[in-house]
Amino acid sequence: MRALVFEGELKYRKDYPIPSPFNDEALIRVVAAGVCATDLEIIKGYMGFKGVLGHEFVGIVEECGDKGLIGRRVVGEINIPCGTCQFCGDGLGNHCPQRGVLGISNKDGAFAQYLTLPASNLHLLTDLITDEEAVFVEPTAAAFELLEQVDLSPSKSVCVLGDGRLGILVAQALSLSLTGCRLVAAGRHRDKLSILYNRGINARIGIEGLGREFDLVVDCTGSASGLSDALKVVKPRGTVVLKTTVAERHAFDLNQAVIDEVTVVGSRCGPFKPAIQALQDRAIDVRPLVSKVFPLEDGIEAIRYASKKGVLKVILRIGG
Amino acid sequence: MRALVFEGELKYRKDYPIPSPFNDEALIRVVAAGVCATDLEIIKGYMGFKGVLGHEFVGIVEECGDKGLIGRRVVGEINIPCGTCQFCGDGLGNHCPQRGVLGISNKDGAFAQYLTLPASNLHLLTDLITDEEAVFVEPTAAAFELLEQVDLSPSKSVCVLGDGRLGILVAQALSLSLTGCRLVAAGRHRDKLSILYNRGINARIGIEGLGREFDLVVDCTGSASGLSDALKVVKPRGTVVLKTTVAERHAFDLNQAVIDEVTVVGSRCGPFKPAIQALQDRAIDVRPLVSKVFPLEDGIEAIRYASKKGVLKVILRIGG
Repeated sequence: MRALVFEGELKYRKDYPIPSPFNDEALIRVVAAGVCATDLEIIKGYMGFKGVLGHEFVGIVEECGDKGLIGRRVVGEINIPCGTCQFCGDGLGNHCPQRGVLGISNKDGAFAQYLTLPASNLHLLTDLITDEEAVFVEPTAAAFELLEQVDLSPSKSVCVLGDGRLGILVAQALSLSLTGCRLVAAGRHRDKLSILYNRGINARIGIEGLGREFDLVVDCTGSASGLSDALKVVKPRGTVVLKTTVAERHAFDLNQAVIDEVTVVGSRCGPFKPAIQALQDRAIDVRPLVSKVFPLEDGIEAIRYASKKGVLKVILRIGG
Repeated sequence: MRALVFEGELKYRKDYPIPSPFNDEALIRVVAAGVCATDLEIIKGYMGFKGVLGHEFVGIVEECGDKGLIGRRVVGEINIPCGTCQFCGDGLGNHCPQRGVLGISNKDGAFAQYLTLPASNLHLLTDLITDEEAVFVEPTAAAFELLEQVDLSPSKSVCVLGDGRLGILVAQALSLSLTGCRLVAAGRHRDKLSILYNRGINARIGIEGLGREFDLVVDCTGSASGLSDALKVVKPRGTVVLKTTVAERHAFDLNQAVIDEVTVVGSRCGPFKPAIQALQDRAIDVRPLVSKVFPLEDGIEAIRYASKKGVLKVILRIGG
């Protein structure tokens, strides 16, 4: 099959073997897939992953033990827990140390004509959600994760740092859930921030002039300096949520976090159901986030394009 | 008066002016003071502080608006909030940005014959607590702080990293509060760990062989690498409490914290009342922690001694 494979360098291959589904797995024909910052980090060496990249996708089930799924349009959760260890037993399958992660760790991903995933990872889609929107389910779920991790009572003030793909999703997810909160999105790009501004969200260039005034700061910068900026605007005893993973290491001054008794919370994959619902209802609008659509055979060019400044979501159109 | 002053270099001075108490302040004759890791970090440049060092002390009130305090033996909280800003209004005086901090920021400290502090910062002592024990009230309070910050239900497993002064206090404070929890103290020094072992606390050399198995890890290493070690043994979705402030900056790989959705909580000064009670009851025994007592005039030698490997608490005996 055709696939975009990272093997120390990124290669477009026409002869990659079609994966064989295990017992509980479905074989899925990929229709479209999104390029995520994590893909770009993997190419820089993050996670040491080799194989087919890509973990944001929509596809059609071709083979499955559950015959009712065959022919259905699905998105899929990306963690594949072992199912037998203590973490899995404790309901923390997403943190199973033996898990595979689609296109990120020990599992070929979605930038290919076919992928396999356990049937239990799949979520059915209705026709109310387009293929391009469906590609955003996984990152939108990641945006919803923080709503499960932190207390957002109405008197709180919240700042989202970063106006990239994830920042724009997180700010929208927060604006859905916050009533009576002060929400500020701070970024670097007037055009990207305008997507939020047009949805009634208070958006600003940079953090200059902001004090240590936010109960909650969400770092979606995708940059190693995001935490330092977050610590500049979070209140003492406030919370910083880190959504950023980067290949680069960075020298942090965590003294301020200790002195200010700040809580720093890592946040990653999230719940698919509210994400699908919000996209279907267009309560979160991702359509302005699509920068360009490439066919899979132009995948290397697509990845290069996704790395450019100012680009939001790049989508690979793979099947019909 | 005689004082140990940091002015870019550490000096013992005989001619330092006796401080004048403001309206709400008491003048306190210092009896004894403890050398803390923070003092050693200040000498390396931490906080950019210049003035009289020292913030762990016991003394006698010599002058005070509240005449009932005069002649009483006291310890004192080290933060001096402005009392008028929003943080102070919200009950977060310890985080007031304009605050002074005894011997650490904008306020001369305790390595001198006299210091001043607001009368409201003072706590009276009974005769059941010795001067040497009283010097430990401030760091013991810091150990109790984390009990106010994290949930310690009985099923939790807890690891304390670091067998220095603070680690030994934190492990003892935790062992008082935890019933049915698994508590492990990991350090580097058999002699220091034996203080904990002799009190029935599970102590071990290093973290080798430990998995990601603790719900809560408390970093008391005083070392920039403490957070990295903590992230190696904390469970996914677990909590790391940072008690460490260091002058040195360190390159952290926070990706693991994000992927594992770990919560990192800074923790600093704490409540004096339970600390005084625990020391008075000898529920926390600090007597084995006193490595050596020096007179104030040998202060420079005392600081040098406190910096040596293997030394626990160094006390300056200042007044009678």
